[in-house]
Order: sequence, then C-alpha cells, then structure tokens
Amino acid sequence: MRAAVITVPGGPEVLEIHEVPAPVAGEREILVKVFASAINRADLLQRMGKYPAPPGAPRDIPGLEFAGEVAALGPGATQWRPGQRVFGITGGGAHAEFLTIHEDAAEEIPGNLSWSEAGAVPEAFITAHDALLQANLRAGDHVLIHAVCSGVGLAAMQLVRAFGSVPFGTSRTQGKLDRAKSGDLEDCFCVPDPSSLASMPEWAREVTNDRGFDIVLDLNGGPYFPASLRAMALKGRIVLIGATAGATAEVDLRHIFSRRLHIIGTVLRARPLEEKIEVTRRFADQVVPKLADGTLRPVIDSEFSLQQIQDAHRRVMSDQTFGKVVLRIAR
Amino acid sequence: MRAAVITVPGGPEVLEIHEVPAPVAGEREILVKVFASAINRADLLQRMGKYPAPPGAPRDIPGLEFAGEVAALGPGATQWRPGQRVFGITGGGAHAEFLTIHEDAAEEIPGNLSWSEAGAVPEAFITAHDALLQANLRAGDHVLIHAVCSGVGLAAMQLVRAFGSVPFGTSRTQGKLDRAKSGDLEDCFCVPDPSSLASMPEWAREVTNDRGFDIVLDLNGGPYFPASLRAMALKGRIVLIGATAGATAEVDLRHIFSRRLHIIGTVLRARPLEEKIEVTRRFADQVVPKLADGTLRPVIDSEFSLQQIQDAHRRVMSDQTFGKVVLRIAR
Repeated sequence: MRAAVITVPGGPEVLEIHEVPAPVAGEREILVKVFASAINRADLLQRMGKYPAPPGAPRDIPGLEFAGEVAALGPGATQWRPGQRVFGITGGGAHAEFLTIHEDAAEEIPGNLSWSEAGAVPEAFITAHDALLQANLRAGDHVLIHAVCSGVGLAAMQLVRAFGSVPFGTSRTQGKLDRAKSGDLEDCFCVPDPSSLASMPEWAREVTNDRGFDIVLDLNGGPYFPASLRAMALKGRIVLIGATAGATAEVDLRHIFSRRLHIIGTVLRARPLEEKIEVTRRFADQVVPKLADGTLRPVIDSEFSLQQIQDAHRRVMSDQTFGKVVLRIAR
Repeated sequence: MRAAVITVPGGPEVLEIHEVPAPVAGEREILVKVFASAINRADLLQRMGKYPAPPGAPRDIPGLEFAGEVAALGPGATQWRPGQRVFGITGGGAHAEFLTIHEDAAEEIPGNLSWSEAGAVPEAFITAHDALLQANLRAGDHVLIHAVCSGVGLAAMQLVRAFGSVPFGTSRTQGKLDRAKSGDLEDCFCVPDPSSLASMPEWAREVTNDRGFDIVLDLNGGPYFPASLRAMALKGRIVLIGATAGATAEVDLRHIFSRRLHIIGTVLRARPLEEKIEVTRRFADQVVPKLADGTLRPVIDSEFSLQQIQDAHRRVMSDQTFGKVVLRIAR
C-alpha cells in the first residue's frame, strides 16, 4: 500500500510517499481502506521529531483520524461487514491506504457525509466533545473557545450551541472571526498580538453580564492561560488541550482558589485503547446523530491528495486555515 | 459579650478585647456560647485588611471555627437543645463569647474531645476532608501534603491514612517532619529553601515506584505549585488551597495536558451557606465517627486565652507551629 512516511525528522520535505506492506488485522481488529483523513498539529510535531508515536502506532506513518471502508475482519471481530463506512481516531498510521483498528474504536459514518467530510470529523469532534464533557457542560453555560477557527474550535462552537449553551471565541484574525460569527458564534475577541489579551477579561465580563466564562477550551496555552484565569466565573472550568502559543505561563494562583476554578489537562492520542473506545462510544451516542441530521457539520478549509501531503502540511503551518485540512487517500 | 475586635488594619497589636452586643439567633439559627476556637491564617490576613469578611459575617470580629454550647434557639430551629456541645465553621465572628449559626451548619462534638480539642477540629478537618473528596481520594493513592505540619496538613495526613491511602509531606523544618513521621506520615521531603524543590520530583518518583503522586494538597502555592506539576502521576489531582509561599508561579503547561492533570482551586470561607452546610454534613458522616473512636485526633500546638489573642496571632506568625493554635474563650 501507499503511505506517507517520515524519512527523517524535519520540515514538510521529509515526507515521502512510499510503498509499504499493508497491516494485518489482529484479534478483534478490522482492516480499513482509508478514503480520507486530515492533518493535525500533532502530525507536524511528529514529523519534526518532537512527538513520538505512542506504543502500538507506526513509528513513521503519521495520521490520527480516518474515514474509510471496512476491507477485512480480524479473528473475533463481529461488529462490521466488509464495505461498511467507518470513521474514528487512532494513535497514528492513518495517512496510508490501509490501517487496522479495534472494531469498537470505529463508528459508522452517517450517509449524508462525503468521504472528505467524514475525514474532517473524528479528531475535531471527539476532542471537542470529550473536552466539553470533562468540563461538565450545562445548558446556558458561557463557553470561550480559544483558536475557535481551528478544526477543534469550530467543532466545539457547534457542539456548545447544539447543547443549548453559548459559544464565544478568540482568534488572531478578525476575518476568520467574522466567518465564525456568521455561524454559531455569539461574540468574539480578536488577539492580533499577545498584548491584546490584557483587555480580554474585561471583554469577558461585558459579554457575560459580569459573570465570567463557565468554561474555557484552551488549545493555545502560553499567555492565553493566565488571561483566561482572570476571565472565569466562580467555579469555572478551563480545559487545557494544547500550547501552540507557548509552553510556559506566569500564573496568579489566587485566581484559581479564590474563584474555585477547575483546570483540566487533556490529550487524546496517548490514551490507552479502552479509553479511546470509551470516548468513541460517547461520540457515537451523542454527536453522530447530530451529524446525521445536519445539526453539526465539519468545516473543511482545503483538500489535498496523499501525493500532496507536503503541501497539506504547509497549509496547516500557514496559520491561515479555517477548519480542517483534509487528506484524500484511497481512490 | 467579650469579643476580639480588629480596631484598624495592622499587626497583632490592633486586636483588642471589647465588650460588644451579643448576636441574636435568626430564623433556623442557634446561639452558641463559644468555649474554644483557633487561629487561622485567614484571621491574620483579615487583621491586616487583606481579606474582608464575606457577606453575613461580622466585619471586625475574626474567627472561622467554634466549639461551644447551644445557648438558645432562634425561630424555627428544632435540631438542638440548649446545653448540647456543637462545633463547626463560620465566615467570621468566632473569636467572641457568642455567635449565631444555622442549625444545620453545626455538628455535635464527640464526648471524648475536650473543648480545646474540639476547637482545633473544624477548619482543619473540614478543609482537608473536603479537599480530599474533591480530589476523589481512592484507597492506595499516594498523597503529597505540602505544609504537612500545619493544622490542615496534619488533619489531611490522618484522613489519608484513615481512608487506606498513603500520606507524604513537605515542610520547611526537618524537626517538624520527624514529629509527623513518628505519626502517620509515610515519608517526607524537607524544603529549607525554595531551591530545594528542584529535586522534589525526583524524590516523588523514588517514593512512589516511579508513578508520581496521585494527589497533592497544596497550601503553599508559589514555587511549590510548578514543582508539584512535575511530581504527578498520570491523571493526578492537585488541590490548591492557599498560596502562603507566593501568589504567582511560572508554570510549564505541557505537564498539565500531557499527564492529564486536574487542578482544583478551593476555598471554604467564601462559600454560600448551603455549601457550608453540605460540607459540614459530609464531615459529620465521614469524619466525626473517626474522631469519636480515636482514629483521628486534632493536634494542638499551643493554647491561648481570648485575652492573649495578640500572642496567639504572633505564635501563628512565628512559623514554628506544629498543629493548631487554640483560643480558649468562654469560662
């Protein structure tokens, strides 16, 4: 099969398409012919040698999500028939024509989603949904989403609205925020420069009737984190999902205990199989029906073929994206 | 009645014993004749003008916990009879001969506790118990308690052991740690100087079989907080209760999400009455029986009369204490 291979750690140019042996489905696994996937920041980090694959995932083939067709069943697998359309998350190896996955870690793709749309769903919607569950989202909550125009951000925005709560967002680009505001976003705060964050807490009080945010989803970290601490409601929850804006922050701890905040660190990729199955089951129960009826819709920034994977990485690196960068694989 | 009064913001010398009107029990309240209380750091902050009393608490009479006798019932109060011995926490006003409290926010004192012992219990044991519940303490957890020789710390140490888990602790003073180790403490790490914290994570791995701590109770904040982040087990919980070692910290956010940590900020004093009643009920159910049978015992550092309240404050300020500084009030 063809697969994207990280030949050595480095820039997009180290990605090559190689012919490699297809994996074989093990006990209770299925073999999936991958029609679409998408690029995630973790793929970029892995390519640079900064984020090794977790145990069980291929060391040199990136790709954390898949949409494809069941091609074969491993021993003991009973949930699927060949030809069924499935999607899900994996620890790596999805930027290839075939992958194997535990049968319970896949979910059927609703009929209304194209392959590209289905490939744009799993990582964004599972990450956002799991984060909102961990934050104990309740109807009416005011939820601030940093990097709201990212794949996870736009998924979170839609989920918050779909669950009867009110999504707010930040981005570095006003043009992107305008696009999000024409959708589900209630209000937004533009951060052209980290120094703009100084007035974010004041804006937070204005748009929440002086209450502050009940939940913040933070994919940025860095200076966004201490600014969020000052923008929270009593007993607010911050879910920290990433640190693309900086790994360290100077934090005033008094905000954390005087407002009785909860800070929840989360990462999907490194979780053990049982936990990945768990989040996939919850996604299947609570999110997939809303994709099937059109309440939720993946947002695609751009599409690339597997052959164009270097360009796909460059597109993510551009920071110009609005939604997901999709990778089309099998033909 | 006699009460300690903060005349102006300042040092211990601004505390004076004044004759003031006794409070009157309102709807569903009881009037308590206070026999003992204790000094908390919040009393010191309030005296310095840095921690105003919450709504409903006297502005100028400190005191967050009480042990005393029911003296009278307000309208609608049915849970108590005059003469019963009760203890509990309050938003302020306990350093006086009488206070009023909602009848559900008081609990009966076990017969084996003296007035001084009973006065040393509520704030320490309720804070520690509530923090451990918030951290979802499970049997076998490794729990690190910063400032383990404080009133809250020694209460937490005993509670952790009583619930089948393993308590560890830090202190600035080796002599105090030796005393704690002769009790319930499994192992300890001395922090004579903040720079000693650099090797704390390494010690954490050694004493936990490379796993890290499941729970950290942090009353210190400052440099203790980032050091704790590096000492945690996967999915560990840090409960941040105070910041006596510094209000700010430089934090590496990657520890929070890569280890999927939960950070829980908590404070008792500012909680609304319903929540204070709730924590008191849980304390009554789970902690008081273990005080009654001697499994748990308050640790008293020293005792002062109400008249000596300035000296009692100075004792807390000395940082030499091991356990609670008790204040004897009614005679």
